[in-house]
Amino acid sequence: MLQEQGLRKRVEEAWEQFKEAVAAGGNPQVLYQERVWPHLLALWRAAPPVHPRRERFRASLHTLGTSPEATALAILGTGAQEVYVLHTAESRPFLERLRQDTGVAIYPIEIGKSDVASIYQEVRKFLERYAEDRVALDVTSGTKAMSAGLAAAGFFFQRFFPEVRVVYVDNEDYDIALRRPRAGSERLILLPNPHELGGEVDWLFARELYEKEDFAGAASYFQRLVGSTGDQAYALFHLLAEMYRAWRALDFKEAAKKAESLLEALRKNVWLQHPLNRHFQRLERQALLLGAARDLLATGDLGNQKGVLGVAATLLHLSSKLHKNDQAVLAALYAYRALELLLQERLWRLGRRAEAPDLSPEEQEALKAELGRILPGEEVLRVREKLGLLEILAFLRVLEDPLLVSLGAKDLQGLAGVLKARNQSLLIHGLEVPSPKQVEQVAGLARKLLQDLQGEVRIQPDLEAIPMSR
Amino acid sequence: MLQEQGLRKRVEEAWEQFKEAVAAGGNPQVLYQERVWPHLLALWRAAPPVHPRRERFRASLHTLGTSPEATALAILGTGAQEVYVLHTAESRPFLERLRQDTGVAIYPIEIGKSDVASIYQEVRKFLERYAEDRVALDVTSGTKAMSAGLAAAGFFFQRFFPEVRVVYVDNEDYDIALRRPRAGSERLILLPNPHELGGEVDWLFARELYEKEDFAGAASYFQRLVGSTGDQAYALFHLLAEMYRAWRALDFKEAAKKAESLLEALRKNVWLQHPLNRHFQRLERQALLLGAARDLLATGDLGNQKGVLGVAATLLHLSSKLHKNDQAVLAALYAYRALELLLQERLWRLGRRAEAPDLSPEEQEALKAELGRILPGEEVLRVREKLGLLEILAFLRVLEDPLLVSLGAKDLQGLAGVLKARNQSLLIHGLEVPSPKQVEQVAGLARKLLQDLQGEVRIQPDLEAIPMSR
Repeated sequence: MLQEQGLRKRVEEAWEQFKEAVAAGGNPQVLYQERVWPHLLALWRAAPPVHPRRERFRASLHTLGTSPEATALAILGTGAQEVYVLHTAESRPFLERLRQDTGVAIYPIEIGKSDVASIYQEVRKFLERYAEDRVALDVTSGTKAMSAGLAAAGFFFQRFFPEVRVVYVDNEDYDIALRRPRAGSERLILLPNPHELGGEVDWLFARELYEKEDFAGAASYFQRLVGSTGDQAYALFHLLAEMYRAWRALDFKEAAKKAESLLEALRKNVWLQHPLNRHFQRLERQALLLGAARDLLATGDLGNQKGVLGVAATLLHLSSKLHKNDQAVLAALYAYRALELLLQERLWRLGRRAEAPDLSPEEQEALKAELGRILPGEEVLRVREKLGLLEILAFLRVLEDPLLVSLGAKDLQGLAGVLKARNQSLLIHGLEVPSPKQVEQVAGLARKLLQDLQGEVRIQPDLEAIPMSR
Repeated sequence: MLQEQGLRKRVEEAWEQFKEAVAAGGNPQVLYQERVWPHLLALWRAAPPVHPRRERFRASLHTLGTSPEATALAILGTGAQEVYVLHTAESRPFLERLRQDTGVAIYPIEIGKSDVASIYQEVRKFLERYAEDRVALDVTSGTKAMSAGLAAAGFFFQRFFPEVRVVYVDNEDYDIALRRPRAGSERLILLPNPHELGGEVDWLFARELYEKEDFAGAASYFQRLVGSTGDQAYALFHLLAEMYRAWRALDFKEAAKKAESLLEALRKNVWLQHPLNRHFQRLERQALLLGAARDLLATGDLGNQKGVLGVAATLLHLSSKLHKNDQAVLAALYAYRALELLLQERLWRLGRRAEAPDLSPEEQEALKAELGRILPGEEVLRVREKLGLLEILAFLRVLEDPLLVSLGAKDLQGLAGVLKARNQSLLIHGLEVPSPKQVEQVAGLARKLLQDLQGEVRIQPDLEAIPMSR
């Protein structure tokens, strides 16, 4: 510390003597090099001033223009022992000066002075070489293109190489007459990453994830935003993302709870201007649907048609997304369950239950005959106690359910094989993987039934996430 | 075009006259402003030289230092009508000059000359205001901190606002004696985004997605890399990502196919140095497991113990990942199926099949009694034709399977309720949502059985994606 104060004092004295000598008519260039520079180097070698604090860098990469002093200070400031310098044909002669001033071996890389593409390439190679190490990119010297390119590459690659820092040598005091920073006013600045600047950027990440339907990821960004900005408005976005996360995970209880908390908050005076209030009615409809679905799961009451609509629409929605992502096994599973639930509900309307159908002997015979028609060539010996997917479908035809009666015999036969295969599918009891065509057959019939149910309860289920804006 | 040539010629002439006048002892500042600058402005107003090509910008944001000429050219070069200028206390006096030179209304924003945080804030506000429009950020003028900060913010935010461009005014020819760019050699450069520079950056994105286990996303980046770099080595990474994508989607056929194609490629002379060859043996083991799983699905032969191991280990692995992501319904489903498959395999070892167990009358009685013990208080009237999860478990105890006989009566009773609930779960036939504890009970027993099977076939299944490096 004492040593540092001594060195700093000597720089200040040298600067004053230099100014006097220049005023007396001396050559500023020569005088600076002789009188000031050695003291400045001594200070930076011993105790470089770094803002916000000194760090240890393993390697550094610098741009070099035609004033090598600032780059020498940057090299001493980072303290790196492996130093790379991007120079141009014009600045090449300064490399030797840099070596002498810093006492560090320097690895030169020549680039064109406007060749940003090369800078990006060199930065990438440099960062891959030191992937695990704390390294510095110094933008102090060189052309605008070089500095801007290096800074851009630095912050861009920080996403992949979190140990990289962008730095530059600043000065607090520039002597305009002498066209030089006042010696001793220079310091190395470690630039903050735009990402680290408060919660404002997290909003963009939260929205990006939300729009990709990564609701868990979005929720955690919104949660962080509440803490980093102190703005409770983000807590409402957090509730919204959590609601969709739970909904997509079929956790209707949790989803309905989040939806109700959100609506309650939006009704409060303080949040009347909250951006989500622009979508209050849509949110209210989604909350109603989720509440009905939750009740259905809690009571098992198939008379809750809205609940059936909510659950079945959700299953079909997810099935279609999974189908698009080549997840055939899961897509089929969701479609099967949607279809079965919708059939169970229709059976319930006729006063029957699939798990205890209480078939009369006549009904048993009629069902056997119907199954025989749908599955030609297969002998149906007896009907199981509980009706499965295919049996409910056949029994609804026996009971003359108009929609199911209206299905063509040919469509039905194709479908029957698929429905019969359900139990053999990989996620149920067997080892079969459904084909995309099979998934489409199941989902197709389920959509027909869903549409019919929508007409019945006069609700058009709205499953899309509401748009994100603030 | 003719007009442009005329204007360009006038600038060149003015520059020559200016040089002569300076050589004759005139004041360079005054002479430049009077003789050269008006012609340069006229050229940039009519036909600004822009590299790689002129674009229409709705708005622009500029840093302003103490040389306003380049900023004036940048404003004319972008052609924006809504112009914001970040200036410092020192550069504030130049705002009026900028207005006069460009004829554009300028909105000033004062910041500290090293205040990078304010620059980020202003850039974000600016970009949110013009979220849908093509806008320019000009880094030409101002301190290094200002330019570097603006460039960094620009490229950082380009991810969220793809219409933003970072620009600067460069010159091809700098007159050192006059300390000015040769008039007419200036041009506005639109900087390329580091992301747009060839396939090199896509590698980083591909790896990022791969490490997050978004194998579909990673595969599409690898595919692009083949095209953009012409390097077929990426095709092997593409195969690898596709293999894991299909594996996670339970598409064992496709996964095994990709695995075999990958191994075949890695055995070729040309790819002996391919980075994936460092993991050849692990890949070979994964391919073997996938091949066995594929065969199991194709033949349904439970004697294929390696196949059972592969499928069951996969189901358990996915169940555990889903469990961690609060996807209880799906996590339970995968765990149930893993357990059932492992039980089916044990039954097969004893010469029996769950879907056609051929129980003798004595076995029927013994099974009923065992079910009664496991499910106390419930009367078991008769055994179904096909054995479900719980019945296989009970029957294996009847058959004195050592592992199942070793289970404690208490553990078994807790488990029995969970297994019985399977058919009532939301994705099977009912409306129940399993609790995390239930999932853990099922997965716990499945893991025990899996470990036993591993000992049997002497294979430790390796389900983790191999590390990505090149």
